[in-house]
Amino acid sequence: MVKVGVVGATAYTSLELIKLLVKHPAVEIVYLGVRKEGNPRISEIFPSLQKILELRCTGMNPEEMPKGTDLVFVTLPPTIAMQYVPRFLQAGVKVIDFSADYRFQDKGIYEKWYKVSHTDTANLKEAVYGIPELFRDNIKNARLVSNPGCYPTSAILGLAPLVGARCNVPLHINLDDIIIDAKSGVSGRGREPREDTHYCECNENVEAYNVGAHRHAPEIEQILSMVAGSNISICFAPHLVPMNRGILSTIYAKLVGRGDAASRPYSEIMDVFNEFYRNEPFVRIKQGDELPKTKDVVGTNFCDIAVRVVGERVVVISCIDNLIKGASGQAVQNMNVMCGVEETAGLV
Amino acid sequence: MVKVGVVGATAYTSLELIKLLVKHPAVEIVYLGVRKEGNPRISEIFPSLQKILELRCTGMNPEEMPKGTDLVFVTLPPTIAMQYVPRFLQAGVKVIDFSADYRFQDKGIYEKWYKVSHTDTANLKEAVYGIPELFRDNIKNARLVSNPGCYPTSAILGLAPLVGARCNVPLHINLDDIIIDAKSGVSGRGREPREDTHYCECNENVEAYNVGAHRHAPEIEQILSMVAGSNISICFAPHLVPMNRGILSTIYAKLVGRGDAASRPYSEIMDVFNEFYRNEPFVRIKQGDELPKTKDVVGTNFCDIAVRVVGERVVVISCIDNLIKGASGQAVQNMNVMCGVEETAGLV
Amino acid sequence: MVKVGVVGATAYTSLELIKLLVKHPAVEIVYLGVRKEGNPRISEIFPSLQKILELRCTGMNPEEMPKGTDLVFVTLPPTIAMQYVPRFLQAGVKVIDFSADYRFQDKGIYEKWYKVSHTDTANLKEAVYGIPELFRDNIKNARLVSNPGCYPTSAILGLAPLVGARCNVPLHINLDDIIIDAKSGVSGRGREPREDTHYCECNENVEAYNVGAHRHAPEIEQILSMVAGSNISICFAPHLVPMNRGILSTIYAKLVGRGDAASRPYSEIMDVFNEFYRNEPFVRIKQGDELPKTKDVVGTNFCDIAVRVVGERVVVISCIDNLIKGASGQAVQNMNVMCGVEETAGLV
Amino acid sequence: MVKVGVVGATAYTSLELIKLLVKHPAVEIVYLGVRKEGNPRISEIFPSLQKILELRCTGMNPEEMPKGTDLVFVTLPPTIAMQYVPRFLQAGVKVIDFSADYRFQDKGIYEKWYKVSHTDTANLKEAVYGIPELFRDNIKNARLVSNPGCYPTSAILGLAPLVGARCNVPLHINLDDIIIDAKSGVSGRGREPREDTHYCECNENVEAYNVGAHRHAPEIEQILSMVAGSNISICFAPHLVPMNRGILSTIYAKLVGRGDAASRPYSEIMDVFNEFYRNEPFVRIKQGDELPKTKDVVGTNFCDIAVRVVGERVVVISCIDNLIKGASGQAVQNMNVMCGVEETAGLV
Repeated sequence: MVKVGVVGATAYTSLELIKLLVKHPAVEIVYLGVRKEGNPRISEIFPSLQKILELRCTGMNPEEMPKGTDLVFVTLPPTIAMQYVPRFLQAGVKVIDFSADYRFQDKGIYEKWYKVSHTDTANLKEAVYGIPELFRDNIKNARLVSNPGCYPTSAILGLAPLVGARCNVPLHINLDDIIIDAKSGVSGRGREPREDTHYCECNENVEAYNVGAHRHAPEIEQILSMVAGSNISICFAPHLVPMNRGILSTIYAKLVGRGDAASRPYSEIMDVFNEFYRNEPFVRIKQGDELPKTKDVVGTNFCDIAVRVVGERVVVISCIDNLIKGASGQAVQNMNVMCGVEETAGLV
Repeated sequence: MVKVGVVGATAYTSLELIKLLVKHPAVEIVYLGVRKEGNPRISEIFPSLQKILELRCTGMNPEEMPKGTDLVFVTLPPTIAMQYVPRFLQAGVKVIDFSADYRFQDKGIYEKWYKVSHTDTANLKEAVYGIPELFRDNIKNARLVSNPGCYPTSAILGLAPLVGARCNVPLHINLDDIIIDAKSGVSGRGREPREDTHYCECNENVEAYNVGAHRHAPEIEQILSMVAGSNISICFAPHLVPMNRGILSTIYAKLVGRGDAASRPYSEIMDVFNEFYRNEPFVRIKQGDELPKTKDVVGTNFCDIAVRVVGERVVVISCIDNLIKGASGQAVQNMNVMCGVEETAGLV
Repeated sequence: MVKVGVVGATAYTSLELIKLLVKHPAVEIVYLGVRKEGNPRISEIFPSLQKILELRCTGMNPEEMPKGTDLVFVTLPPTIAMQYVPRFLQAGVKVIDFSADYRFQDKGIYEKWYKVSHTDTANLKEAVYGIPELFRDNIKNARLVSNPGCYPTSAILGLAPLVGARCNVPLHINLDDIIIDAKSGVSGRGREPREDTHYCECNENVEAYNVGAHRHAPEIEQILSMVAGSNISICFAPHLVPMNRGILSTIYAKLVGRGDAASRPYSEIMDVFNEFYRNEPFVRIKQGDELPKTKDVVGTNFCDIAVRVVGERVVVISCIDNLIKGASGQAVQNMNVMCGVEETAGLV
Repeated sequence: MVKVGVVGATAYTSLELIKLLVKHPAVEIVYLGVRKEGNPRISEIFPSLQKILELRCTGMNPEEMPKGTDLVFVTLPPTIAMQYVPRFLQAGVKVIDFSADYRFQDKGIYEKWYKVSHTDTANLKEAVYGIPELFRDNIKNARLVSNPGCYPTSAILGLAPLVGARCNVPLHINLDDIIIDAKSGVSGRGREPREDTHYCECNENVEAYNVGAHRHAPEIEQILSMVAGSNISICFAPHLVPMNRGILSTIYAKLVGRGDAASRPYSEIMDVFNEFYRNEPFVRIKQGDELPKTKDVVGTNFCDIAVRVVGERVVVISCIDNLIKGASGQAVQNMNVMCGVEETAGLV
């Protein structure tokens, strides 16, 4: 049994994470660190955990972590996480961090978008970006995995086959002409009550926000550039739709060198995607007329992807549950890889 | 043209009120009093009013109210409203108050439930409870109308025919055995962001709250007792359902003196309701198999009512839009009555 | 491993059932019987099962069921189910039937409400009603378990402690004065497209339906009468609320013999409920100020219950996921009991 | 008073249309033609019209239309509408047609996408496309106005300033590189119960559909080409989001001849939009940080538009109520223009 802890256990993603871990056949939760007075049971913080997990929370301090803990999930907000991550690494446990603090290899980009100085550049260097479909080998040996953002997960998985060098891709897209129009459920906005999370403001409403100015844009660009081996820039427009969970990213890319390519069949593009994800347990490429629906992935660790061609454009539609494959499920998948457990354990 | 003002213009009900008043053929909005710095246009507070009403807000002070104003709507919270209402009455305008501050003839009940001393008992005495279907004649001559709560409006209109003395009712219900199970949309909780108005807490969820302990219970009891000429006590259980607007009250009452009454036809009860509301423009008694749906009244000033008999019980189902007939629409209806305008003006 | 089949595998409950069975550590799905041409994979019928279960469907015929099957779940509609259940019993497997066909010991009541003659009275006699919290011992030895309706599950679990003889209940309620006001999500209406399941008819709407005329009323009355050892009649009003899943039943009962009982503390009632469900893994009695919310039980096999006293009335609020504890989860719980598996296996 | 009729009065848009017409100060509804037996009152078809409009329906035949009718709205489905429109024109009334039958000047495009032969090419030639903001002068004198599709209305209004010749636009976009990612509420799918309009299929779900293959794409292309005076081709991807009403189109266009244009300020683009719609009562250009929200336009005839620049891309966000500005409200606006009534009458 892998002995795990959760540090900062009061976000929506923490609740999802705990629910996944409780059902995981090879995991035991031994530690819950929170910033609450009086060591409450986790079921007092989340009543839906009554009769599921009655463990008492303790502080967010490695000293309060039981001996023999193998790994902690840090679910603290960005800029706070990097105050705690080094202390747990120091204490000898592996760490999966949910924040953005270890996602940017170039700390300048992080500092520009998160408006703070990075205080743990030593560990930043060795952090591995946690999309197993792309970086499995590095994750396997990592001490510190940086769990990806929700939008980036859906966008990167949707685009990787078209920019990737892993298989001998016979297609090319224009790397500076990529548009990502993403639609997210409201849990993506976090658990804090604000005007823009008020039921009556979100319900029966669709809106765009942070168009061209969302922190996940540079994250997507960095990782895709890494995959492509070449600089990529995107136009990213996130939208809020009235549902609890789920992200659907509609991605518009332009095939290049395809002038002679009117003859190229649609099946050639499908082959690229089918081949790229052939052995992946959590990516499903929709065949034929089917298109992905968020309701088919909500509650699961799947990423469903479909591809269409419209004129010169390839349109990729990629969807996930933002709280599972976009957060807690992917974290469990990373944990499985890091700890030598079957990668799908606890997730199907 | 009736010249009106709105004092405290930033609640959900204020926005609805303004939208109704702007379309009202016999009304001119001349004054918006708010507690905001810098005299913003109302369309800066509510962007949905752009190109509809660009009037600048001023302070909540009768001196800032233009000469010739006929009536103001006070949409301030309870306990605050009674600080302002007397000043506007003093200034010579009629007032329709949206708060609970003038709803209780017995100030002891008010003080018990709202936990403050009443500071304007002089005006409290002359305040008229604003359900035109029941108190039209008093409203006609009132200087101060207390606009009813949303739950009370739906419950009282549903029960009045069974307890009322207006028509020669051939039926009697047990006055101390009335159950009101009410279901409300989330706008009933107000515009303030709180955990219990967070989208992800309300969406895909039904819950009861304040069972037997909601402030609208004594309000319903007082008004129904007045209508019945006898003390009435109720069991009131409000519920929150995931929609923006609408209240549906399911009311369970017990017919008495009906022992011999198995022979009494259902049509007799229908006659009571049909007769009671025969000439009312805003109450629709559903005939035959039809049952009320909140979606049929949302956006309107209607109260839709159906009646069923189940064993010894009469079940009355009554529904309204909590922001219209349960607040702003009823206020406009009251204004029409108070100012000698056609009662349905601006409402159909 | 328990080898199971699902007969009639295309309802919403079937999909939920299959998802539960796939994750169940002690179960293997060996047979899916449907009325579809051409032996499709179940993942062609439910795309969300891709990469989860790719088993091919066969016909609804015991001959097509693999040797060694232990138990089948029959998820066919009422009146159809009783054509198939006897054939599978005959073939020597245990059966859990989801329809109403084996719920009524008095076939006259069944025939009145379902408007057909019962064609399998032999097996009807031995069928056990499948609420393990009340009938565990009988379920243990049953060949045929009749899985309860969704409304009945929530209502019966909420009322059993007040009418039950299992513990020495110091309280009594009036058995012919029980009101059940239930609120259900739309999946309760089934998967067939009809006007009343159209998104725009259900969304932003609450309505009552079948007031005093729903088939689940006699089911609740029969089972509660069995538990009480005395005839019980109820007033049942179901409502449709805009959400996918979940039922919340608000139950109004009247304490009798409590005249001297103003002195009786609320804690006495709580003791009755706490004691009644002390060892039940799937019933959670809410303590203190907490009230149940459907969102806390959706996706789980829990029934959450709270109790309040309002005047002479006890108000019990009971909620479940209609597709899990109200259907597929309870079926799995029954299977566990019938097959000697840990009762909570596959459900937490 | 303008005397109007509605032919084919049972769609969602018909109900909205009737509600608008009833409130219109200069209109009288004199005729409702439907394909129902027995001349029902319209309030029997739409119960929400009780006490609002009790007019009896008659047949869809010009002979059943009262003398003196000025104009009929035809709300029949495509391919059916063109069987009735010529008969009403023949009878001497003006017609506003809601279907696609008169939207395509090039009947070949219509026949390709709607898969029927056009049977009324005579009237097709004189039909005017009914977006008053672009074609007001032609609408003024038209006998037959073709009311636009919902997606086209939002997309065309969002793009017209960037392709239009009306004002001396100092900006140019690439006319063959326009992407329209549109998000629509479910009422856009019509009132017929189908699997894809089932509540549980739409709720808590976002999906794309008909990507690159939606009938509104050629409609958008035709009208924008007319406005631009040059051929335009688009990539159009519609999405379904879980709400009743509203469309938000996010449009990605590429500025050309802007190489030197890094110096060009954002305000220059804003000026183009502000100038283009300066005197339009129903288009609101969002200034500063504000972005459009469908909830701000639902129930109104407004189109709210915002503009952003992201790299080389101009991103235009345009939203409307699909049933009002995208259908019935725009039809009333067209009627006002055609009949010499104040253009905003009945719409604010």
